[in-house]
Amino acid sequence: MDARQVLEAKLHREIPLSQAMGVKVSDLSSSRVEISAPLAPNINHKRTAFGGSLHSVAVLAGWSLMTATLQETGADVGYLVIQDSHMEYLKPVPSDFTATAAWPDEEMRKKFLNALGRKGVARAEVTAEIFCEGTLRARLRAQFVAEISKAD
Amino acid sequence: MDARQVLEAKLHREIPLSQAMGVKVSDLSSSRVEISAPLAPNINHKRTAFGGSLHSVAVLAGWSLMTATLQETGADVGYLVIQDSHMEYLKPVPSDFTATAAWPDEEMRKKFLNALGRKGVARAEVTAEIFCEGTLRARLRAQFVAEISKAD
Repeated sequence: MDARQVLEAKLHREIPLSQAMGVKVSDLSSSRVEISAPLAPNINHKRTAFGGSLHSVAVLAGWSLMTATLQETGADVGYLVIQDSHMEYLKPVPSDFTATAAWPDEEMRKKFLNALGRKGVARAEVTAEIFCEGTLRARLRAQFVAEISKAD
Repeated sequence: MDARQVLEAKLHREIPLSQAMGVKVSDLSSSRVEISAPLAPNINHKRTAFGGSLHSVAVLAGWSLMTATLQETGADVGYLVIQDSHMEYLKPVPSDFTATAAWPDEEMRKKFLNALGRKGVARAEVTAEIFCEGTLRARLRAQFVAEISKAD
């Protein structure tokens, strides 16, 4: 299994709702993650994607990006949690969709990792964008907090 | 079936993810809606509720409150959609949980319905709170937009 398949299996095992939503990891690096999901299990009364599903898939993209970034450091991360999220629903999502999370720039990523190394805890804001049929449909901004495991 | 059961069946039918999340409508009026969900289908890697599930259940509570409010007017609502959401994750959710949505006061509800009657379209901000084991765990603020069906 490559890193993409390992992450997908981890999501399905640890967050079973990701399996119910039909989530797949379609692209993965420590600077960009793309998660895809079919419309059918995420449909709403208007035959478009349910706003809760769009937010969940975007959060999974953000969480996966943070996890990939942290894995690269080799640090023993005690926890990684979402603290706050803001979702803008721009346009309906009438078919299968993707959520892409990326660090805005290399400096932000380094700043986060430096703070984590120095203080053992750090916060980062991640943006994830929902695309469908080539068009931006929704945008998530989420704050995550990571903490390094303390020795007992 | 009473109004609570009708809404629950509607959620399960129209938004199938609500069934995968085990969502139940535990209380319903046009001024307050309570939705409950079990931990098991919504669990994450930390054995607490997945942040995406908490947001989804809170959105369903808000959407249900708006639907109940609109039904009371007897108007033919063409659409009711979420436009924007802000979620604060205050504390982990280690067991079954509820989301309660309520109008902050009667005046806000009247203002929304008056605007809808006058312009045919209106926006409302709804708050939904996640409780678990008697403690507030997360808070959603969401903007919904409703529009009355136009005659062809």
